[in-house]
Amino acid sequence: MPDDSPNSWEARAAANSFYGFTDLPTIAQRGTVVLTGGEGPYVTDVHGRRYLDANSGLWNMVAGFDHPGLTQAAKDQYDRFPGYHAFFGRMSDQTVLLSEKLIEVSPYSEGRVFYTNSGSEANDTLVKMLWFLNAHEGKPEKRKILTRKNGYHGVTAVSASMTGKPYNSVFGLPLPGFIHLTCPHYWREGQEGESEEAFVDRLVAELEETIATEGADTIAAFVAEPVMGAGGVIPAPMSYFNKIQPVLQKHGIPLISDEVICGFGRTGHAWGAEAYGFTPDAIISSKNLTAGFFPMGAIILGPELSDRLQKASESIEEFPHGFTASGHPVGCAIALKAIEVIMEGADGNPPLIDNVRRITPAFEAGLKRLAQKDNIGEARGMGLMGAVEAVQDKATKLPFPGSLSVSERIANACTDQGLICRPLGQAVVLCPPFIMTDDQMDEMFSKLETALDLVFDEVA
Amino acid sequence: MPDDSPNSWEARAAANSFYGFTDLPTIAQRGTVVLTGGEGPYVTDVHGRRYLDANSGLWNMVAGFDHPGLTQAAKDQYDRFPGYHAFFGRMSDQTVLLSEKLIEVSPYSEGRVFYTNSGSEANDTLVKMLWFLNAHEGKPEKRKILTRKNGYHGVTAVSASMTGKPYNSVFGLPLPGFIHLTCPHYWREGQEGESEEAFVDRLVAELEETIATEGADTIAAFVAEPVMGAGGVIPAPMSYFNKIQPVLQKHGIPLISDEVICGFGRTGHAWGAEAYGFTPDAIISSKNLTAGFFPMGAIILGPELSDRLQKASESIEEFPHGFTASGHPVGCAIALKAIEVIMEGADGNPPLIDNVRRITPAFEAGLKRLAQKDNIGEARGMGLMGAVEAVQDKATKLPFPGSLSVSERIANACTDQGLICRPLGQAVVLCPPFIMTDDQMDEMFSKLETALDLVFDEVA
Repeated sequence: MPDDSPNSWEARAAANSFYGFTDLPTIAQRGTVVLTGGEGPYVTDVHGRRYLDANSGLWNMVAGFDHPGLTQAAKDQYDRFPGYHAFFGRMSDQTVLLSEKLIEVSPYSEGRVFYTNSGSEANDTLVKMLWFLNAHEGKPEKRKILTRKNGYHGVTAVSASMTGKPYNSVFGLPLPGFIHLTCPHYWREGQEGESEEAFVDRLVAELEETIATEGADTIAAFVAEPVMGAGGVIPAPMSYFNKIQPVLQKHGIPLISDEVICGFGRTGHAWGAEAYGFTPDAIISSKNLTAGFFPMGAIILGPELSDRLQKASESIEEFPHGFTASGHPVGCAIALKAIEVIMEGADGNPPLIDNVRRITPAFEAGLKRLAQKDNIGEARGMGLMGAVEAVQDKATKLPFPGSLSVSERIANACTDQGLICRPLGQAVVLCPPFIMTDDQMDEMFSKLETALDLVFDEVA
Repeated sequence: MPDDSPNSWEARAAANSFYGFTDLPTIAQRGTVVLTGGEGPYVTDVHGRRYLDANSGLWNMVAGFDHPGLTQAAKDQYDRFPGYHAFFGRMSDQTVLLSEKLIEVSPYSEGRVFYTNSGSEANDTLVKMLWFLNAHEGKPEKRKILTRKNGYHGVTAVSASMTGKPYNSVFGLPLPGFIHLTCPHYWREGQEGESEEAFVDRLVAELEETIATEGADTIAAFVAEPVMGAGGVIPAPMSYFNKIQPVLQKHGIPLISDEVICGFGRTGHAWGAEAYGFTPDAIISSKNLTAGFFPMGAIILGPELSDRLQKASESIEEFPHGFTASGHPVGCAIALKAIEVIMEGADGNPPLIDNVRRITPAFEAGLKRLAQKDNIGEARGMGLMGAVEAVQDKATKLPFPGSLSVSERIANACTDQGLICRPLGQAVVLCPPFIMTDDQMDEMFSKLETALDLVFDEVA
């Protein structure tokens, strides 16, 4: 029960906040959790309650909630130069350095970087870049964007149109010209008796047919997360991208890797694309880019798209696009440090990606153990992103009735024990910070298991 | 001439940066200006050159480039809690406090706040809110957005569609359903012999006709900057909003005030709407909200829209929208301090808005003095935002040929003297930081006048 005295934090939060992505019945019943600070992978609320955040905030606080190196990088830059833009041929030195660094850690030997404040803005910007580029090259009709059902690409009207989630219909989205192909989730979408390879071939055939029907000259890009995140942690079959990419190349359609969640180490590789062994035409980055310490997104253009866009821009003397805080010096200084902390090791500590690789086997084992329960249909994931999916009937994969709100109940039962994890559809998602210790891993799985048993006892 | 040795900052910037809103011929000729720090209203580049930034960065660094109070607020929050989101019924204490404060300084006695990372995202979100709300209330066709030519509302595909600038045609924008009415710029748009009031009445009639033609039930909102910013600092006639608003109210169309530039003191009032004496149905805020120290935008919903949106959200148990860094605790802590610094006075110093009011008469006098030149057609502005518009012929208001790039040349001649100001069309815009002293004001006008004389000698 929330404290509903008018001066409680819960009442003050409710009075003036318009909540996004929040289950309103849960809020009405339990009140807002108002947080004041964090320590390692734990956060603390106004009542002194402590939660292990198996969600890394929102996939992004991968170095935890009090990383001294990142905090120091932020403070130092606030002392040096606390804000500037990147318009009119001016930008901060930190912006120059980060662009160099991003190309260095990208799959490209050369390319160009454009900054935004979020993954949503980065995907929206990418679409505008392609619309501009294609119009300049005499193909103004080459505007459609292919994505997949359950793919998540953001919440601006255009990036929400790319997102393949049914809830966007309440906004009258997607806009015309955004096409959602089949989700590459073999467990749920594979047909009776169909092998995983036959499943992939069917998706490749669907892509071929879609291109034939729509016309390659109307399709600007195929945009995909290597492992889907907010769709419920769905890794495509390993052969998927290597079979999709040649089809796209044959038809002159760029493959864009949305690495907002996978990027910088989440899968145990620098990029999700690396895990699948493909090189995209551009990368969308955000979240881990600053380890959640600053709002930032980036489009990393590979050499071909970079050159074509540069030519198109030179033809009209300008690329007429940009956000006020694009390339903000504090965000860039933090991102430079985050790349060091995650990928290279900083201040005498090994790179966090080493710990991702070290603890991934235990993480996978924990998920598999939970999958032995009668009401867990699948455990899936890659690196330090995973999910267990609740089912009413394991053999038929029948979900629980939506009215039971099974995953929300599991998440609430976790919260009661001081564990934050995320309900997504009928799955519960885990994406712990990269700093997690073995003991914290044990705590996470033990609390989740208690919650699962509690809720399945009630509903099964 | 830029230093084009491969290790120069200019070459390193050019190698990996994809420039937005940047005149590429100027870059090719002069190179990027790479900045390392600032002091008060001045910024410093890698060569130790110092510039008075009459642009306040991008309208936003109103407290200057090294404000100790804002820097300290940022550092303190990085120590306390360096990042979190506002999803799933969780948010930071700073987020709760900022929402309370924003309602307190808004024109509303109650209402709700939703956070984004930019003004672009805030306008994009507003449109999604209205699409959702209207569909819920049985009017799924009520989607069109009315704005004005030269109005600037951002760069996501939707906020760029709201923006009434011709350059957006290169992206194939605006999207259908975004209608741009006449710019309320009496000097440029007023007809021969037409009084200012007759001009306003003509724009009101245009609005009436547009609503009649399109149908009120197809129009979701009228969105306007009180004083247009990136359109070239264009204050509407004083009676404009008070004549427009009753028409909108009659037809059930909300009036949204885009206060990204006007908001928090720029006009000498808290809000631009206050300067014009109207109360909008919602406010879009960004820029000054954090004095440029952090990327942040906010939609401040007045009581009616807030209640209707809350009901619509409750009907589907969720408002399915939000950005990862919405309500970021560091941004909120900085914004709380920025409001204190600008509106209330902090750390023993008077509120910066007092200085805005104190120096506005000198600012207006400086602009009027420049307007006496043969090639300045108009000086205009409100509070600390102003512009002078270059003309080839003062009597006929004939602009210079675009090929002469007059305003870019003026801006470059300013840069050569260590003054940053912004070319916009054929105007040069001034929007100095709120901390400006009398001496700095004199420096700004003196350098601008030298640049104007130099360029007009070349082209006139």
